[in-house]
Amino acid sequence: MIRSLCEKADVCIIGSGPAGATFARLLEESGKNGVILEAGAQHSPKYGENLKNAALYQRNKTLFSHIVRGQLNPVSVASTPGGDTTGDAASAENSAPSVNGTNPEQDPSRNLPEAGITHAVGGMATHWTGTSPRQHPVVERSPLLTPSEWDRLYTEAERILRVSTTEFDDSIAHQLVLDALREEYKELEAPYDVQSLPLAAQRRAASTGLVEWTGVDTILGPLAAPGRSDRFRVLSQHLCTRLATDSAGSRVSYAEAQDLLTGESLRIEADSFVVAGGGVATAQLMWASCIRPSALGRYLTDHPLAFCQVVLLPELVKQPIPEDDLEPNVWIPLSASRPWHCMIHRDAFQYGDRIPNVDRRLVVDLRWHGMVEPRADNRVTFSDQHRDKFGLPQPTFDFTLSASDRAQHHAMMSDMLRAAMSIGGFLPGAEPRFMPLGLSQHIAGATRMGNSPEDSVVDCNSRVWGIDNLYLGGNNVIPTATACNPTLTSVALAVKAARHLSNG
Amino acid sequence: MIRSLCEKADVCIIGSGPAGATFARLLEESGKNGVILEAGAQHSPKYGENLKNAALYQRNKTLFSHIVRGQLNPVSVASTPGGDTTGDAASAENSAPSVNGTNPEQDPSRNLPEAGITHAVGGMATHWTGTSPRQHPVVERSPLLTPSEWDRLYTEAERILRVSTTEFDDSIAHQLVLDALREEYKELEAPYDVQSLPLAAQRRAASTGLVEWTGVDTILGPLAAPGRSDRFRVLSQHLCTRLATDSAGSRVSYAEAQDLLTGESLRIEADSFVVAGGGVATAQLMWASCIRPSALGRYLTDHPLAFCQVVLLPELVKQPIPEDDLEPNVWIPLSASRPWHCMIHRDAFQYGDRIPNVDRRLVVDLRWHGMVEPRADNRVTFSDQHRDKFGLPQPTFDFTLSASDRAQHHAMMSDMLRAAMSIGGFLPGAEPRFMPLGLSQHIAGATRMGNSPEDSVVDCNSRVWGIDNLYLGGNNVIPTATACNPTLTSVALAVKAARHLSNG
Amino acid sequence: MIRSLCEKADVCIIGSGPAGATFARLLEESGKNGVILEAGAQHSPKYGENLKNAALYQRNKTLFSHIVRGQLNPVSVASTPGGDTTGDAASAENSAPSVNGTNPEQDPSRNLPEAGITHAVGGMATHWTGTSPRQHPVVERSPLLTPSEWDRLYTEAERILRVSTTEFDDSIAHQLVLDALREEYKELEAPYDVQSLPLAAQRRAASTGLVEWTGVDTILGPLAAPGRSDRFRVLSQHLCTRLATDSAGSRVSYAEAQDLLTGESLRIEADSFVVAGGGVATAQLMWASCIRPSALGRYLTDHPLAFCQVVLLPELVKQPIPEDDLEPNVWIPLSASRPWHCMIHRDAFQYGDRIPNVDRRLVVDLRWHGMVEPRADNRVTFSDQHRDKFGLPQPTFDFTLSASDRAQHHAMMSDMLRAAMSIGGFLPGAEPRFMPLGLSQHIAGATRMGNSPEDSVVDCNSRVWGIDNLYLGGNNVIPTATACNPTLTSVALAVKAARHLSNG
Amino acid sequence: MIRSLCEKADVCIIGSGPAGATFARLLEESGKNGVILEAGAQHSPKYGENLKNAALYQRNKTLFSHIVRGQLNPVSVASTPGGDTTGDAASAENSAPSVNGTNPEQDPSRNLPEAGITHAVGGMATHWTGTSPRQHPVVERSPLLTPSEWDRLYTEAERILRVSTTEFDDSIAHQLVLDALREEYKELEAPYDVQSLPLAAQRRAASTGLVEWTGVDTILGPLAAPGRSDRFRVLSQHLCTRLATDSAGSRVSYAEAQDLLTGESLRIEADSFVVAGGGVATAQLMWASCIRPSALGRYLTDHPLAFCQVVLLPELVKQPIPEDDLEPNVWIPLSASRPWHCMIHRDAFQYGDRIPNVDRRLVVDLRWHGMVEPRADNRVTFSDQHRDKFGLPQPTFDFTLSASDRAQHHAMMSDMLRAAMSIGGFLPGAEPRFMPLGLSQHIAGATRMGNSPEDSVVDCNSRVWGIDNLYLGGNNVIPTATACNPTLTSVALAVKAARHLSNG
Repeated sequence: MIRSLCEKADVCIIGSGPAGATFARLLEESGKNGVILEAGAQHSPKYGENLKNAALYQRNKTLFSHIVRGQLNPVSVASTPGGDTTGDAASAENSAPSVNGTNPEQDPSRNLPEAGITHAVGGMATHWTGTSPRQHPVVERSPLLTPSEWDRLYTEAERILRVSTTEFDDSIAHQLVLDALREEYKELEAPYDVQSLPLAAQRRAASTGLVEWTGVDTILGPLAAPGRSDRFRVLSQHLCTRLATDSAGSRVSYAEAQDLLTGESLRIEADSFVVAGGGVATAQLMWASCIRPSALGRYLTDHPLAFCQVVLLPELVKQPIPEDDLEPNVWIPLSASRPWHCMIHRDAFQYGDRIPNVDRRLVVDLRWHGMVEPRADNRVTFSDQHRDKFGLPQPTFDFTLSASDRAQHHAMMSDMLRAAMSIGGFLPGAEPRFMPLGLSQHIAGATRMGNSPEDSVVDCNSRVWGIDNLYLGGNNVIPTATACNPTLTSVALAVKAARHLSNG
Repeated sequence: MIRSLCEKADVCIIGSGPAGATFARLLEESGKNGVILEAGAQHSPKYGENLKNAALYQRNKTLFSHIVRGQLNPVSVASTPGGDTTGDAASAENSAPSVNGTNPEQDPSRNLPEAGITHAVGGMATHWTGTSPRQHPVVERSPLLTPSEWDRLYTEAERILRVSTTEFDDSIAHQLVLDALREEYKELEAPYDVQSLPLAAQRRAASTGLVEWTGVDTILGPLAAPGRSDRFRVLSQHLCTRLATDSAGSRVSYAEAQDLLTGESLRIEADSFVVAGGGVATAQLMWASCIRPSALGRYLTDHPLAFCQVVLLPELVKQPIPEDDLEPNVWIPLSASRPWHCMIHRDAFQYGDRIPNVDRRLVVDLRWHGMVEPRADNRVTFSDQHRDKFGLPQPTFDFTLSASDRAQHHAMMSDMLRAAMSIGGFLPGAEPRFMPLGLSQHIAGATRMGNSPEDSVVDCNSRVWGIDNLYLGGNNVIPTATACNPTLTSVALAVKAARHLSNG
Repeated sequence: MIRSLCEKADVCIIGSGPAGATFARLLEESGKNGVILEAGAQHSPKYGENLKNAALYQRNKTLFSHIVRGQLNPVSVASTPGGDTTGDAASAENSAPSVNGTNPEQDPSRNLPEAGITHAVGGMATHWTGTSPRQHPVVERSPLLTPSEWDRLYTEAERILRVSTTEFDDSIAHQLVLDALREEYKELEAPYDVQSLPLAAQRRAASTGLVEWTGVDTILGPLAAPGRSDRFRVLSQHLCTRLATDSAGSRVSYAEAQDLLTGESLRIEADSFVVAGGGVATAQLMWASCIRPSALGRYLTDHPLAFCQVVLLPELVKQPIPEDDLEPNVWIPLSASRPWHCMIHRDAFQYGDRIPNVDRRLVVDLRWHGMVEPRADNRVTFSDQHRDKFGLPQPTFDFTLSASDRAQHHAMMSDMLRAAMSIGGFLPGAEPRFMPLGLSQHIAGATRMGNSPEDSVVDCNSRVWGIDNLYLGGNNVIPTATACNPTLTSVALAVKAARHLSNG
Repeated sequence: MIRSLCEKADVCIIGSGPAGATFARLLEESGKNGVILEAGAQHSPKYGENLKNAALYQRNKTLFSHIVRGQLNPVSVASTPGGDTTGDAASAENSAPSVNGTNPEQDPSRNLPEAGITHAVGGMATHWTGTSPRQHPVVERSPLLTPSEWDRLYTEAERILRVSTTEFDDSIAHQLVLDALREEYKELEAPYDVQSLPLAAQRRAASTGLVEWTGVDTILGPLAAPGRSDRFRVLSQHLCTRLATDSAGSRVSYAEAQDLLTGESLRIEADSFVVAGGGVATAQLMWASCIRPSALGRYLTDHPLAFCQVVLLPELVKQPIPEDDLEPNVWIPLSASRPWHCMIHRDAFQYGDRIPNVDRRLVVDLRWHGMVEPRADNRVTFSDQHRDKFGLPQPTFDFTLSASDRAQHHAMMSDMLRAAMSIGGFLPGAEPRFMPLGLSQHIAGATRMGNSPEDSVVDCNSRVWGIDNLYLGGNNVIPTATACNPTLTSVALAVKAARHLSNG
């Protein structure tokens, strides 16, 4: 575990998800070379493919939900003190306050229990839904950027992620749900009316009935083929354990990493560093590196998620749905009077163990995502005593919903019920409910952007206050309450940051 | 879906699991070129790595059980006629005899409900346990081969799979369990006494506490690196849909395949063909190709599996077990008086949703595998009416246990209870039980080897009776009742077959 | 099992539930003597007390739900052919088409799976909710009776059952829910607006915070005390197995019964016979007695039930709710435009195993009961081959919902969601759903009243067509679709029938 | 709630279970009059019948398990701090440390979670199994009594409870299990060999196939018929809340009770008082009455219970078992080398929700009961702050198993597995496990008998040290570790105490 290698590069990027990949692509295009450190393994021939593109999962989506679950390493599992009171050896070990990596400091009522970290080349893009809406101009977007800059950045991000709203137009189920919801929500006016979801996806040759979902391979472009680029290398299963700063603390000198398979240590020297390790892990690495600004880990936001599945009403299904018909992907965008983001679609995720005896082509998911107001005391802390499975400081959530958050979510649930009833009856086992927090994996704010180091961690170029050569990427940079899927916004902010870095 | 490509090769191998890979490696070494058709996707940089080698799963084995589940496409799911009787739209579709790809011809009491097919480059070796025992010389091995030929083939197969019995020797838990069971089973004599499991695995640098498990990349050797070999190519996500024979039916002329992503058709012409698609899928392809010898799909055998988990007795744990201690891997081989194969270890599989509040280092799995006598009426049939999700004839199991099978399994359960009680108390939720059939994914016999086409499908060189250039590989070739993990045996038989083919 | 006793009486009543008890009380008052045969046991000092009056269950309502479940003997449990496929003795018996009293003739998708028969002195009144609304004058009531006759009979039935709407007026939770729903449903006009439920209940001394719920003891009055009356005797645990008719088939000569504890046979001769054995058992006894008019068992109706539980919105709970505050009992009656019967209350029934960590005083149940149009082919049949646990012909349901039934229930669910959202958030585990059919135990129609023997079993006086001295009682007599709880209506019809009988 | 009644009697007995009833019967026979206070309701025509005698439950035993569950009021349910983290109103109340009567002082790992109190006239005899073995002369019986006195008392207790070992002799299943276990356990010698269970039961007329199980009505004899005796009255639903002592504290002056239905207070003056309220409630009443000797609540013992169900081996079932065959009731008594009490029978209790598709006549239960050594720190305490649902001090358990307890239970489990395997295969869902503590409702020791007030609460006549006219009854009086069902022993000790009282 001792042999120490040293590498040098223009840029060292930690994390190979969409934000990190955006940095890599743009910096390579601007002539820089670099190294990407990724703690997870490579699961596809090209770097970071979206694994649900596999023919198997396109034909058996339920199977893919297991893959997703197998890729998400839980952030903080509350210990359950006590235990069983049976008579044999089994209870001999009950006295331990924490076993099996559970977190004894986690209050279960203040947890984001479903929060996980994807360990994979490609990060969460190996299994994401591809939903890529822009934030609402007023309700969600931060005023730190001008409207025109937002538009410009979003346009570029949409190109990078290959976003489209027309790929499912010839799906019978899609049109059927679209029409029924437009009929129900007649009062909504463009651009906030019922419409097709913007998706980072592209139909394959029409004949196949298959979709190719964007992954990090799409973002990386030519860099995605292993061995193709001299200038950017991906070091998979290499965990960055520390950023070392110079004596003044104003620059990062090098990153320390561990080869998780051999145990060898690595030191990466670079001119600039980008940390894009995910909503919690980015803050965790800063904490582990003793870069601990006061806003670090605070102002956490999440998407409370109201969910149900319905079986389409018989009167809506006027013709048989072919076996290879694509699923619906319908959207009701957030607006000022409806501050929630509505997806009416069919996801790989399945929350029950068993699909009832109902034709899956008639089943539609409804997911209504709400917002949480950013509050300084909604936070993740890191332990100096407990370590996670990789030896880094154990994160602990301290998160609650305010009365006004709850009131908004209650109104959101009512609205979801309206939409559900207009298209179907509840699927037994998937009745309307709020899902446990953290499930959408959209935790934002832990290293938020701002105007001042007092209540933010990075400036408007995603550069850490006071550290000249350290940039951050990912949802953790988003400073505002947001209901819609944040990836497009994170990529947009990464574009701005990468431009600044390459010009800097 | 129309553009048709045509390729030519010395050999066309269908299936990229351990048997197919063994053929490829040996045929390439003998100078032949070829194409491997694999319906599944590639999930690792090299072809067919064992995915549990990832650092994440070495640290969080429970997580890996989801990956396994996500890779196994069920063979035959019985339809559940009827359905709910609630009042809303949900039950509108109850009348359909079969929905969501379930099999209306499957009698649930004659099913192997947990049987699955791994769709992946590397086949089941992407997630296998690596357990590689030789069959018992008398009780399990087929007399079709001489004892010395068996020994020679096993030795070669062990080299190919990199089998060892010493990798876990410095594990505290391993030694503790080994000692306790040796104490309990004092009456057993070598070579059938309590010992270390032979495993296709190799410790990484001692310092890391990690193991590298054999995958198909190990078998392929230099062929495993994409683009490295001119002579053997892997076409992933290409489903072989038919073997076309010449007019006499005595030779395969070409294989038809479908690119599952583009829908394009492919025709592969070759001098020889090897089908090694898995225990059921190999027989399925023959059926789909109208190669239907009378023994096809018959004489199926499986491993009834008695299972429990125990928490080690406090008096056995004389010292604390370090966090990074390796798990136990202990074996009691099958012998004439104990016709079952016993593994005392710690697998990634988890059958309960929730691990009780017990330190996982104290938990040990017991798996006792029994035998099923080969009977002509234990079989899998293929439907000319129903298709599976890939358009091939739907398999249906017709499988029962005889009274003598059951009596033997009952004795096996008693023995497992003896072993369990000698080392621990039952883990709540993992009490002793028989697992549903098919779970071990060791179905054998569907294209069994034999002396006559009357009760077998292939000859002693794994060549299909009556078709000169068609060889088969995989557990399906094994003709005898077998309790131990069959992969080593399948590789041994593939070695023999590949030699014959390359010399032929 | 052979010794045969013979009794004589003016009237022999089969069944001791509310309808049977009403007959007994009125007939006794008119000077007749009689015998009541009841298959169930006596569970209280007086005949047929409502068991939930016990102090224990008033303090721990969840506990009472077990008692209810323990009193309901399922009518028809569908067999599950097949079974497990494990290896030990356990599956030796899989081949049996039916075990443990399950019904091999029952199609699970045409069942009323939760239908049960209460075996107890007092019938279902030993555990009923006491809800006693009148049917809607137009939507529900049968035109066979005149409006004024209905009013007169209802008034008498309310007196007999001791119905009140004011017993919960000083409950804080009751007023809170009443006010909130009145605010939500402002458009509803009296008498169909939000109001207090009519309940067969009476507050005990105000100081205790307890309610005394009506049972059959209330109906029987002085007859309820064992040994008090010379004229009416209750023979508990005596199963009536047959009614014997004279040679012309126009009169019942005697009833045969079995003492279930001693096995002795009994013969009861009487001038008149009343069968009031419950929604299904009354028809079953007729079938067993070879009294099989063409409408017997047909035109079955049930109450599809939409259910959820909510936790009250914090803004509604303006003051702490005392520990001994009574539960809410709020009603929105059925009306022409809202053809469903709405109960907003707190029942003993609990559908989840575990109450979440929520103060029970904040939990409110919503039960919306719908109607099913009477159709001749919605029926219960009786088997000449299979017997139930008491040796009588096994009932089998053949029941489906029509498209218009479903459409109405869908609208009902939407309305329940509106009400739910106006007062609370869904209690995790008790989200809105349709309950399995039969659960409300309100199956009606099996021996319906009518104008003609062609489509009915009894005339307007509840006398069986063509059998002069045989009267029927219970929900089975109600001929119309009904959404509201039927007990009051059954008692009203029993009053009319008893008057006819005593005058006849 | 204020009107106070006053009654006078020779004896006031608190609790109407077997011990209390034994006092009543013997004291009445000696010419005394008295009052029995019982918190629960009367559920049968006679006082305290065994409810499972009902024809319904004799035909449907599973149904009866719900009744049992509905009669047991949990003693101490640990609070679960925390709660869900979803977004709606549901979690508004998460902050409360205790809701719904849960006990915030209860450590779940030191609980007897299944302990319950039966509120019913007849106490636990309304649903008990009737198993009535004598304690082992050396291993279990207390040396406080001489062997001959034990024999005399046991003989009398067996007469009172109507104990027999021959009632199931003509059951095919009984003989079959008896024979198979005798064959397996050949080494056991009388009187500790395999034999029929002593049961407090009596066959009804042979023709019926029914059994009449002993209840408190059997014990009370003529006193069981309400209104029959002038000398002893049962006041049901009257909770004794306090015993008032004289100023010296050496005599009880009167008992205070509350009519749970009317709220009225009652004062009962008597010459003597007997408290027989159950294993925990008896100690609770003493605590509430400020009678708090140092041993009160200490030296608690329970029966750790190993349980499984098996399906009989096909080879044992040589003839079909008739539908009305009685269940097996086989016993292997505890002996010095096998310190556990073994029941092989078929109980009404069902631990899984669903009986698998296996003929119930082939299913046999195994229950192995172990012992716990009496230790002063295994105890129940009573809270001065928290109240139970009836306003009495909330009990909290502080109970653990010692290493030697656990070792003995492990050996017991091994032995149960031996017995199980000799007769059947595990029933899926009922595999061998230790049940949660408290389940057998046999908690003993809380007011143990002894030679000195230092480590006991009562003397050898069950009289409380230092209080001349206060006697205790019930399992709580038993001072030793005991594995067998304690009721017979408690009745034996009550006989001795009642004699002392009536002679005193």
